[in-house]
Amino acid sequence: MSEYTLYCFAQSGNAYKAALTLELAGADWTPRFVDFFNGETRAPAYREINVMGEVPILEHQGRRYSQSGVILDYLTEALGKFGPLDAEERREILRWWLFDNHKFTSFTATLRYLRNFAPATPSAVVETFRARAEGAWKVLNAHLSNREWVVGQRLTSADLSLCGYVYFADEIGVDWNDYPAIRDWSQRIAALPRWKHPYDLMPGHPLPAKGA
Amino acid sequence: MSEYTLYCFAQSGNAYKAALTLELAGADWTPRFVDFFNGETRAPAYREINVMGEVPILEHQGRRYSQSGVILDYLTEALGKFGPLDAEERREILRWWLFDNHKFTSFTATLRYLRNFAPATPSAVVETFRARAEGAWKVLNAHLSNREWVVGQRLTSADLSLCGYVYFADEIGVDWNDYPAIRDWSQRIAALPRWKHPYDLMPGHPLPAKGA
Repeated sequence: MSEYTLYCFAQSGNAYKAALTLELAGADWTPRFVDFFNGETRAPAYREINVMGEVPILEHQGRRYSQSGVILDYLTEALGKFGPLDAEERREILRWWLFDNHKFTSFTATLRYLRNFAPATPSAVVETFRARAEGAWKVLNAHLSNREWVVGQRLTSADLSLCGYVYFADEIGVDWNDYPAIRDWSQRIAALPRWKHPYDLMPGHPLPAKGA
Repeated sequence: MSEYTLYCFAQSGNAYKAALTLELAGADWTPRFVDFFNGETRAPAYREINVMGEVPILEHQGRRYSQSGVILDYLTEALGKFGPLDAEERREILRWWLFDNHKFTSFTATLRYLRNFAPATPSAVVETFRARAEGAWKVLNAHLSNREWVVGQRLTSADLSLCGYVYFADEIGVDWNDYPAIRDWSQRIAALPRWKHPYDLMPGHPLPAKGA
């Protein structure tokens, strides 16, 4: 049995944040596939595990943790990697986790979900999320325009949170060349040893054909 | 000069999270009005202060803090109130801050904003945010159904984050009697000494009449 178990599925950028952290650190971990597209996270058994009904969940030493930011907080401490150096960095990382959950990942993930997995969505709804996502992309692009990493001068859990969905550019419908600082930063992360795309790191890709 | 200065405006439930924390603790604080509805947070001068372009910002001892969750983290430490008792509670509070930023406040605040301040919004967009907000309300209502406070057995910064928008029920278009655990919890907070409604705690209400 592996040391860490991560409830996840390939299409979840929020799960990717934790999976990539484990993988980059060389941790001993196993994915536990969650059948999101067939409703597993809405089922009572799953809600018993996580009242919020979300992926990812991390299991370690008999305990469970949910919310990607909490998992990143726990993992950086347990693994001794990618965490803050002092209280000031800890708050700066927290600041970017919150911005990521509130806007960057939230709008990007929803835009990508609606475009790819909810084709009946009215275009006004899709465009609302696109406009909000673009606002968030501009903020991160401005922040990264004169720095290599989101906090400090090395990869931290702030980067690992914000990069959750950026490798789905085609599915989001964004060309990161229009946000060159995000493009360069995402390539910097992708050049790290052991990096993998979410579809290569977690189970469930590609989705079964409809009716299969 | 007051010890704490909070950049805020009456309509911002995110600012209310910090304002209410300061007020309940009896802190020496002054609001600094941000003219959100005339574009102040989109102006370059404001982005210099906060690249994320958001309210609130807290000033204390010559330093500035942004993101309501970071401010709650800082204030509970500085004030010695409403914070976690141990590492486990710290992560549980973080978990609810993240859920609040990602879903509970995010969808509730957007629904209320669209209904009250962006009347031209297509109804499909409003209904999308309503459906997502209802999902988040159900999660918190379930969590509170057998407990008085979100984390532990007392008011913490988890409650102070989640309650940011709940006192705008009419503007949200929700009857909290449909979510009785949220209703009882919000009344529990409102019964605390020094509690005030956001419109009575921060400057800028009511908005000037259009064209005034």
